[in-house]
Amino acid sequence: MAEKTLADLFHETLKDIYYAERKIASALGKMARGAQDEKLKDAFITHKEETQGQIERLQAVFELIDKRARGKTCPAIEGIIDEAEEIIEEFMGSPALDAGLIAAAQAVEHYEITRYGTLRTWAEQLGLKEAAGLLEETLAEESRTDELLTKLAQTAVNAAAQKAA
Amino acid sequence: MAEKTLADLFHETLKDIYYAERKIASALGKMARGAQDEKLKDAFITHKEETQGQIERLQAVFELIDKRARGKTCPAIEGIIDEAEEIIEEFMGSPALDAGLIAAAQAVEHYEITRYGTLRTWAEQLGLKEAAGLLEETLAEESRTDELLTKLAQTAVNAAAQKAA
Repeated sequence: MAEKTLADLFHETLKDIYYAERKIASALGKMARGAQDEKLKDAFITHKEETQGQIERLQAVFELIDKRARGKTCPAIEGIIDEAEEIIEEFMGSPALDAGLIAAAQAVEHYEITRYGTLRTWAEQLGLKEAAGLLEETLAEESRTDELLTKLAQTAVNAAAQKAA
Repeated sequence: MAEKTLADLFHETLKDIYYAERKIASALGKMARGAQDEKLKDAFITHKEETQGQIERLQAVFELIDKRARGKTCPAIEGIIDEAEEIIEEFMGSPALDAGLIAAAQAVEHYEITRYGTLRTWAEQLGLKEAAGLLEETLAEESRTDELLTKLAQTAVNAAAQKAA
């Protein structure tokens, strides 16, 4: 068996995030249905649509390295999404639900940010310039989503605190 | 049953990260043993020691809200650490192992960064000034560790690419 290289690591991690993105798209639908604040609901719907574009970019990256686009179970995203579903269940009807949903969504975003940051660095090292560019585009989108969620979080916690008072 | 509030969400999330930190401390030991580069090995050992201080800060936060310090299974960190262990197994002996270990450690850091950021915001809203300060201290440590790993990643991918050439 040939020694494993950075190219193998890149391919393995690409499969991991490809699986994760498809799980995330479906989780965002549930989160949008759960959200109480209209702006938050919209943010989840918009990001679900963006996620579709991110999946297509990943497919393009698979093509650039001559591999078939396929996912590989990603236990990290399974765990992160399990926690999101737990929050929806436990806090349904509570004024704190939105704050919990945002926290869960930010855990998802940070997982993506770290994976895309890593993949972009590896693509550069491997001389995959076009792939690095695609990964960078997605990374920028994820960072913007995370910033928007941070802003919405302030509204959500204020609302939760007011209703609870 | 009383309606769930932001204080409940804060307490639940505190239990989640308390469980996660103890898992992370043990995973960092394994990562340090696996690392090939001495600087990376040192970074893992230093962060394992820091993690002990972070656990103590969490115990102080539990005390500040008059709760017993106890964890609650955190499926997210379980999944993130499972992936780290998979990398160690699959890439042991490969020049790409360090790059993989750093990616895994950054996934851990980003999970912590998002959780501590959220907890600090909630603590502020709940008027828990001292707790917010403690959470902010840990958040700063986690961010510094993430930055250090980003630097070490460049060395690791260069080494992997060189050895593979």
